[in-house]
Amino acid sequence: MTLSDTQIQIFEEIFSFRNWRRKIGSENKLVGFIPTMGCLHEGHLSLIKQANQYCQIIVISIFVNPAQFAPSEDLDKYPRTLSDDLDKLSSLKCVDAVFLPKVEEIYPAGIPLEIKEQQGTFVEVKGKSHQMEGKTRPGFFRGVATVCTKLFNIIQPDNVFFGQKDVQQCVIIRNMIRDLHFPIEMHVGDTVREKDGLAMSSRNKYLTPEMRKVAITLYQSLIETKKAFENNIRDRKNLLDPAFELIERVTKENEAQKLGFSIKLDYLSLTDPDTLEEIDRIKEKGAILSGALYVGSTRLIDNILFNCKL
Amino acid sequence: MTLSDTQIQIFEEIFSFRNWRRKIGSENKLVGFIPTMGCLHEGHLSLIKQANQYCQIIVISIFVNPAQFAPSEDLDKYPRTLSDDLDKLSSLKCVDAVFLPKVEEIYPAGIPLEIKEQQGTFVEVKGKSHQMEGKTRPGFFRGVATVCTKLFNIIQPDNVFFGQKDVQQCVIIRNMIRDLHFPIEMHVGDTVREKDGLAMSSRNKYLTPEMRKVAITLYQSLIETKKAFENNIRDRKNLLDPAFELIERVTKENEAQKLGFSIKLDYLSLTDPDTLEEIDRIKEKGAILSGALYVGSTRLIDNILFNCKL
Repeated sequence: MTLSDTQIQIFEEIFSFRNWRRKIGSENKLVGFIPTMGCLHEGHLSLIKQANQYCQIIVISIFVNPAQFAPSEDLDKYPRTLSDDLDKLSSLKCVDAVFLPKVEEIYPAGIPLEIKEQQGTFVEVKGKSHQMEGKTRPGFFRGVATVCTKLFNIIQPDNVFFGQKDVQQCVIIRNMIRDLHFPIEMHVGDTVREKDGLAMSSRNKYLTPEMRKVAITLYQSLIETKKAFENNIRDRKNLLDPAFELIERVTKENEAQKLGFSIKLDYLSLTDPDTLEEIDRIKEKGAILSGALYVGSTRLIDNILFNCKL
Repeated sequence: MTLSDTQIQIFEEIFSFRNWRRKIGSENKLVGFIPTMGCLHEGHLSLIKQANQYCQIIVISIFVNPAQFAPSEDLDKYPRTLSDDLDKLSSLKCVDAVFLPKVEEIYPAGIPLEIKEQQGTFVEVKGKSHQMEGKTRPGFFRGVATVCTKLFNIIQPDNVFFGQKDVQQCVIIRNMIRDLHFPIEMHVGDTVREKDGLAMSSRNKYLTPEMRKVAITLYQSLIETKKAFENNIRDRKNLLDPAFELIERVTKENEAQKLGFSIKLDYLSLTDPDTLEEIDRIKEKGAILSGALYVGSTRLIDNILFNCKL
């Protein structure tokens, strides 16, 4: 499929998008926006469907954002599947525009992967960006907050939609919208899962069939903690121990099978839903349980919420 | 004068400003915005007059921004003259709205003066914030960029107006608007001066009559360099030496007079107009000559441009 085969408006330049956006503005329609890095899956599509319930105009961006990749990470091999993405968007029959900007236009001051070399304007949400995902990926949320600010200023949406799978991102963007006074309402969509429970993710494409089988371990470990929570356990140790034990057991089993790849837990966090600080006990305001697991070199993340909303 | 005596719309809350702004938006009028910290002088008023030539709607904010003051600086004693400011704005007969927000609403995550203690969202223009003013005042331009982002998102202006006196601020805000893709056009107004050449500044109020006499020294030193430039001198040493010599002479004269206060040069910078890096020679793209001078404990800044625009 070529770009012209779709009914969706495709914009590759800010200037042309703004011209189109100006017309929408004069029609008093609510604009919903879902920023993506492409390689769309059911998680993205469910956000679009959610947006379609609130908004008359739906805009998607597809932009693999260099500022949220470290030099050691997978920017170059991050999956890019534009033609397939546009097919999926077309089939939804509710998407009005897709914004496909160039890196050079989004980052006019350039964007080297080394943070120390970066010049130009950056946005940072202090106090919520250094822990959890930010501990393993320093600079990641600075990249996310910066690109979202740029995209919000270009798209000028009334509503934005993010998926719960990226739970820390949800908390950070909600804080950013509040702190910077964007006139935008934020919505969080539920994590969409495969039949066995694996959270949908563009990075699942990296998994071989053998890896795919054990990729579910992270979610299963979260469920172990959930069971403990449902048994009225509230203290950190007794909530997390069953999860750690499950991961340890599967890690060892996997090693014994000599499949040529290893499983490694990056972290498991039990945090306050507002501050994202680790907690010793789940109290009335609830908690976020989140983690990251390496399956081979692929890093998978997942989370569940206890008695709280994003 | 009370707030109700003026024809100008006064807004102290974001919510009420947004309601008013929404109506303006539907009328297709261009909105011009001048952010200020109050204590308005002819410099501000000249920006407002400039805005009135471009825009049908003029909005002023008066907000003493804590994020651009260090703990050691003059946040508490920064002059606040609201009633007088509103009189001046009324007399211009072109100002439509004044936005007077509360610190708590602009900074919902709080804003302690110690940068290390600050939480919430901040905007930084890397590469242009650490030198010149930023060297003496670390965190200053982070505070400026952050509050301007907040105010731009609330006011949603089509045009913004800044004064050349704050030359580094002009360069930084212009970069920020470009990098973050604000749909805003920026204008820079000339520095407005007293009869003897002293740049208008809210901080001039701090000067005693004796201090006021020598406050002109910074501008006079810039003029010494300008004379050298007009004599076709282009190398740093020969451009700046006459300026340094003038300041040194006046500093010594002032000491000899034992007036109870001292003069001290903070810095004199000759920089590339784009990168704000110090240069050894003025080439085709011109240069910014800028400096800061302490007169007693009052810190005054000024600048002139050579063959360049902001």
